[in-house]
Amino acid sequence: MGKEGIRYAAKVDLNTDAAKQPHLHNRWHPDIPACGTIKNGETVKIECVDWTGGQIGNNDSADDVQNVDLTRIHYLSGPFEIETAEPGDVLVVDIQDVQPFEDHPWGFTGIFAKENGGGFLDELYPKAAKAIWDFEGIYCSSRHIPGVKFAGLIHPGILGCAPSHEILKTWNDREGQLIKECSHMGRDVALPPQPQNVHAGSGEGDVKEKVGKEGARTVPGRPEHGGNCDIKNLSRGSKVYLPVHVKGAKFSVGDLHFSQGDGEISFCGAIEMAGVITIKFSVMKGGVKHLAMKSPIYVPGPVEPQFGPGRYIYFEGFSVDENGKQYYLDTTVAYRQTCLRIIEYLRRYGYDDYQIYLLLSCAPVQGHVAGIVDIPNSCTTIGVPKDIFDFDISPEAPADKRELGSCAFASS
Amino acid sequence: MGKEGIRYAAKVDLNTDAAKQPHLHNRWHPDIPACGTIKNGETVKIECVDWTGGQIGNNDSADDVQNVDLTRIHYLSGPFEIETAEPGDVLVVDIQDVQPFEDHPWGFTGIFAKENGGGFLDELYPKAAKAIWDFEGIYCSSRHIPGVKFAGLIHPGILGCAPSHEILKTWNDREGQLIKECSHMGRDVALPPQPQNVHAGSGEGDVKEKVGKEGARTVPGRPEHGGNCDIKNLSRGSKVYLPVHVKGAKFSVGDLHFSQGDGEISFCGAIEMAGVITIKFSVMKGGVKHLAMKSPIYVPGPVEPQFGPGRYIYFEGFSVDENGKQYYLDTTVAYRQTCLRIIEYLRRYGYDDYQIYLLLSCAPVQGHVAGIVDIPNSCTTIGVPKDIFDFDISPEAPADKRELGSCAFASS
Amino acid sequence: MGKEGIRYAAKVDLNTDAAKQPHLHNRWHPDIPACGTIKNGETVKIECVDWTGGQIGNNDSADDVQNVDLTRIHYLSGPFEIETAEPGDVLVVDIQDVQPFEDHPWGFTGIFAKENGGGFLDELYPKAAKAIWDFEGIYCSSRHIPGVKFAGLIHPGILGCAPSHEILKTWNDREGQLIKECSHMGRDVALPPQPQNVHAGSGEGDVKEKVGKEGARTVPGRPEHGGNCDIKNLSRGSKVYLPVHVKGAKFSVGDLHFSQGDGEISFCGAIEMAGVITIKFSVMKGGVKHLAMKSPIYVPGPVEPQFGPGRYIYFEGFSVDENGKQYYLDTTVAYRQTCLRIIEYLRRYGYDDYQIYLLLSCAPVQGHVAGIVDIPNSCTTIGVPKDIFDFDISPEAPADKRELGSCAFASS
Amino acid sequence: MGKEGIRYAAKVDLNTDAAKQPHLHNRWHPDIPACGTIKNGETVKIECVDWTGGQIGNNDSADDVQNVDLTRIHYLSGPFEIETAEPGDVLVVDIQDVQPFEDHPWGFTGIFAKENGGGFLDELYPKAAKAIWDFEGIYCSSRHIPGVKFAGLIHPGILGCAPSHEILKTWNDREGQLIKECSHMGRDVALPPQPQNVHAGSGEGDVKEKVGKEGARTVPGRPEHGGNCDIKNLSRGSKVYLPVHVKGAKFSVGDLHFSQGDGEISFCGAIEMAGVITIKFSVMKGGVKHLAMKSPIYVPGPVEPQFGPGRYIYFEGFSVDENGKQYYLDTTVAYRQTCLRIIEYLRRYGYDDYQIYLLLSCAPVQGHVAGIVDIPNSCTTIGVPKDIFDFDISPEAPADKRELGSCAFASS
Repeated sequence: MGKEGIRYAAKVDLNTDAAKQPHLHNRWHPDIPACGTIKNGETVKIECVDWTGGQIGNNDSADDVQNVDLTRIHYLSGPFEIETAEPGDVLVVDIQDVQPFEDHPWGFTGIFAKENGGGFLDELYPKAAKAIWDFEGIYCSSRHIPGVKFAGLIHPGILGCAPSHEILKTWNDREGQLIKECSHMGRDVALPPQPQNVHAGSGEGDVKEKVGKEGARTVPGRPEHGGNCDIKNLSRGSKVYLPVHVKGAKFSVGDLHFSQGDGEISFCGAIEMAGVITIKFSVMKGGVKHLAMKSPIYVPGPVEPQFGPGRYIYFEGFSVDENGKQYYLDTTVAYRQTCLRIIEYLRRYGYDDYQIYLLLSCAPVQGHVAGIVDIPNSCTTIGVPKDIFDFDISPEAPADKRELGSCAFASS
Repeated sequence: MGKEGIRYAAKVDLNTDAAKQPHLHNRWHPDIPACGTIKNGETVKIECVDWTGGQIGNNDSADDVQNVDLTRIHYLSGPFEIETAEPGDVLVVDIQDVQPFEDHPWGFTGIFAKENGGGFLDELYPKAAKAIWDFEGIYCSSRHIPGVKFAGLIHPGILGCAPSHEILKTWNDREGQLIKECSHMGRDVALPPQPQNVHAGSGEGDVKEKVGKEGARTVPGRPEHGGNCDIKNLSRGSKVYLPVHVKGAKFSVGDLHFSQGDGEISFCGAIEMAGVITIKFSVMKGGVKHLAMKSPIYVPGPVEPQFGPGRYIYFEGFSVDENGKQYYLDTTVAYRQTCLRIIEYLRRYGYDDYQIYLLLSCAPVQGHVAGIVDIPNSCTTIGVPKDIFDFDISPEAPADKRELGSCAFASS
Repeated sequence: MGKEGIRYAAKVDLNTDAAKQPHLHNRWHPDIPACGTIKNGETVKIECVDWTGGQIGNNDSADDVQNVDLTRIHYLSGPFEIETAEPGDVLVVDIQDVQPFEDHPWGFTGIFAKENGGGFLDELYPKAAKAIWDFEGIYCSSRHIPGVKFAGLIHPGILGCAPSHEILKTWNDREGQLIKECSHMGRDVALPPQPQNVHAGSGEGDVKEKVGKEGARTVPGRPEHGGNCDIKNLSRGSKVYLPVHVKGAKFSVGDLHFSQGDGEISFCGAIEMAGVITIKFSVMKGGVKHLAMKSPIYVPGPVEPQFGPGRYIYFEGFSVDENGKQYYLDTTVAYRQTCLRIIEYLRRYGYDDYQIYLLLSCAPVQGHVAGIVDIPNSCTTIGVPKDIFDFDISPEAPADKRELGSCAFASS
Repeated sequence: MGKEGIRYAAKVDLNTDAAKQPHLHNRWHPDIPACGTIKNGETVKIECVDWTGGQIGNNDSADDVQNVDLTRIHYLSGPFEIETAEPGDVLVVDIQDVQPFEDHPWGFTGIFAKENGGGFLDELYPKAAKAIWDFEGIYCSSRHIPGVKFAGLIHPGILGCAPSHEILKTWNDREGQLIKECSHMGRDVALPPQPQNVHAGSGEGDVKEKVGKEGARTVPGRPEHGGNCDIKNLSRGSKVYLPVHVKGAKFSVGDLHFSQGDGEISFCGAIEMAGVITIKFSVMKGGVKHLAMKSPIYVPGPVEPQFGPGRYIYFEGFSVDENGKQYYLDTTVAYRQTCLRIIEYLRRYGYDDYQIYLLLSCAPVQGHVAGIVDIPNSCTTIGVPKDIFDFDISPEAPADKRELGSCAFASS
């Protein structure tokens, strides 16, 4: 009775060449064989390599970024056949969690050299560069960008269902036309199919050759299926609605990001990482028509970080009064003690006790019943908003006495 | 065609004695005559005096607080008859807005003397004290508590429907019993009916006498109708569900607070003010049974302040490139310019441009399309979260160069 | 002692032609005479007409939108001379509040006809159209777009300091160049200076003629001063940092919006309104260099709406127990009663009491001390998050009994 | 170069009796030997058993809850010696993460029988009961409380530093006095030291006997060190400031909760689980005096869940126009396509396209630049707030056509 944990639909090996792993592929094509089957309604874990398949190292040189081989990206996990999914359905993807590997707690952000990949500001910043980020729980920091630390809004950069043959042809025609029109621009404006370094999962021989010749590159995202959307808010708890174009959907996912800014401006721009994503899949029959869907839609999850510590300092009080007397689960006594803890704390800045007592009454302090069952102590907390003060009341800040006047008192 | 503004269901005059104004009253009793009628579904404005009816002045002495006459509080606006409301219904109160009077932009917080009113900490702080707060738009600050400024979570301290005679009797019995039981405590434990200074609205003679003898005091809140609940989050946009006990509901409201902390610990504890509340009333027939309601419930509104400034600094970019060339609604150019504005800003702290370019790519910056229709300029904004830095990047803070190392570069 | 309210730096008259009011103007030019002086550190109120100066009526025809005269927009309030401000300084603009006029509680959104103004989707939607919005407190709704109601994120669409003569020349050159380059496009790509219907405030004769010939139009926003930025989050409590280009800054503001979407896509796109803005002005000496500023920056305020009701339902409990016994300020009793209120409420859906008791213990309910000073009743509240249920527990929704199984019990 | 992951300061074995594991203990006493040393500034992982040490099973009977042995709780991990910490210092505890074990993805909530443990409502609900919760990523749900699913606000229920001998004596005196005073109440009002089933870590013989005789029980929390505070918001990213009373601090932690409601009302009230907590420790020298600290304080972390899905539906658009033409990184085209996706979606409810175009312009839609570097497609997103509609526009809801009138059009 009870469960042993969630099934892994795909595992990867970070010490093996990504090009040799059968649960990976790096093109969009309907003929890439499915690497597994997932039930409608099932939740699974899917391991992913980083988008370069391990080309970038945890070191202090950007040589690997400068010399990255862009025919080998992006290695995606999948495709997975989702039972009962058919063209015209919508695949509902509940992202239940995304985590880096415990024994691989780092990621990287790169700026590609203008002549190999480039990026949004490459006219101004043509050199290759790199930053390595270390993960500690929900936070990341980088020895290459000191002074910065934040919680990751962790998400997959790429997810989607396989295109049909018709859609694939549309893509190749449409982007081929642009390449022709822009031949004068002297720079890549789109990436056509490229047989070199194609990885078609378990597809070999004719299939692999066909995928190489026709398969859409994983750059860019495309309206018909989403794909490489790089939406920074598609994080834990988000729900994505993807149109299905082939039987079984053939869903793929990869390019995990510990964090990203809107625009992902340096191209290799997020904090790229290997890791594991937990997804619940369900099929909405006939969903494309029902939702009038031409491109995916999504609903963000409930746990977006605030990117800063809470703005309240919380004080605790217990049902032991200021004379040391113990009361039995008396929440009123506990609340009074919590008030006193704040008075003691704020008094250090030069406030008179009565000023603080007044302030506690009218500033938007948050008063909570924390614990009311652990006999004999009730525990209450009060949060004081730091931002109502024009000086810093954080515990880390100095507590200099200042001239803070007085409240009004009665004349006698 | 069009409307001239929202109807006032009650006006008050701050220069007239509250005890003489017919839209006010200061007891709970079913026989207080209604001062007006409001339709089911109607939105009205209701003016309110401060809870003491003007006993407290905007000055620097707490003599008025020390000598406050507590038989005269709380002056409530109403009661209003709500059309179609009957016992067993629920009155749904949509608080559309609460504002101080434009020509009365101040409020007060008081600590009552232990021997006249007291408060939560009166054993430790027995003296009367006062702070006056000035309002400027959404903010308040006090000359009596320097160093503090915050946005008000503005709300009514008291609102409810009149009790029936049966409920009124329950209250008087219940609280009378407590007074008897606690006679040894040497302090007021409840406030029984009090004919002195009773104000029964337009009710005079026998009615007034009866209200004086039986009417429940406006301290405390009571489970059967809510009343003096002092819930700090009952602010603009909140919706309250009140049980109806008499025909027409006889709704009253007052004791407006510009702000309050949980517990309202000093009794006269919020920022007390006069002002106007805008309410939409609707009747849920049979709601008491439908909701299994014994006490009011509420849903907070959508505009609770964060009690601190936004934690992002936003930069603007337009479709004029770094050489001064004008583009026609080119949002990509605008977004690139916005990135450059941030690089220029953060470079002041000692970061190399490439470090910032990397950071922009992976930190959770918020990139928005601000304006896309004012030819020829697109305008985009990017918000940079202040809290990801371990130093203060606010415009007001100094921008000292610091030693911030380097990102990784290629060896050639 | 005490203050009478905040000074009005400019008043407007909605019944007078905007073109005749001396506190208004509709071009950017350094020679437009200041209409008043504001101290460094002062807070003032500034009234504004709607951006068309009253051309659009509260009615059910879009004829006025179709025939709008775009040479007359945008009427701005100002310019105001800010004491001590000089070129190179930054003007810090604290937006303390924005409100519609009480007797003018409505606004409009327009779609301009393709041949007169146009908009972001005019190739697809070439017709003129209009919606009128009614304001009730913080909310708006429209008889022309039923089914929608929301709280306004109220803000000014335009604010900025006057350009210097040099900057003005840059604008005219830059946009003139674009007009020349795009002459083949068959549509307006920028709006050059236009003497027709110019309003230079109190400037008449030569000044007015010069402003007409050289003055920059109020469409679009421009990088050097901001201006028509249409940033939807520049709402109450926001702080904007504007570069100063002329002595006294010559600050102007207008184009108030009750709400707007990112992009303001229909050009006349926000909910346009007349109203009053409350601003605190302060001067940061040498701020342009200090902040490395090329375009304005801003920090959003603390009161951004969530655009939906709170997601918690709050229940109240008082220190009167389930047998009707009254306790003296006993917060533990009140908290227990609050729990019981929730059990009674949720039981209606088919849950067993023990299931709810378990749920209350582990779901993230918010337990607050609401009031603790109104003798004899303590009042506590508990908020239950609606979104943890897969059915709707709102008071408005039906409360059908459903099959909800059972928790585990002991075998004896 | 690079790191292999974070060090484990303590491991537990869920298949071994908790009473036999040397990294665990179940009393507060200064003489319990440290089970390891942690550097000032170090981040470590600490594994914890559930608070009962495995007494409760993943099954459908509450017999185990009914018969729980409360002399064996709470098994805490530690104590850990923190280098450099001395009495008078403050130990700063950064909770970087808390996770359940991957192969143990479940927890439990119990109601203790009134005669063995009891709880907040035991007078009304005296029976033992239990609910088992399954974890899937950030979410939990229970077969015993159907209809409910939410993201965990995961946190430790107990953490603190060891008491000094003086403080321990204070506790025993204070609570002993209460037990004496309440002997008439016929129920446990506090839990005195209890030699039975004491676990003093690696302490045996005399030490264990002493700990049994004097050691404070882990129920309740106490003002001098915090301990069993059960603060539901002490989640990932939170920072706690704990007073140090003995050399090396002797920090302990345990009683992990996947979620809890304020008050933890059923005593065994949270979702109790085994798992691993990641903590960064640092020592604030002389912090007790600096912070005027009598009880712990804390600052909540940045990732508190909203307990509901995001309230926006996001639509994606790419730089491929409605005729299938491909543009090169044209964000304006992408934004226009995103608008069209919304028009297509909302049209299903009966709105005219022009109504939606107006609405997009003025409702607070969130327009983001999502990806701007994956040639040739820009990707933009627009979020539409669900809550501005008075019907449900979720993808899951039906999309019935309704009568939604018309916006105003021009007469010709």
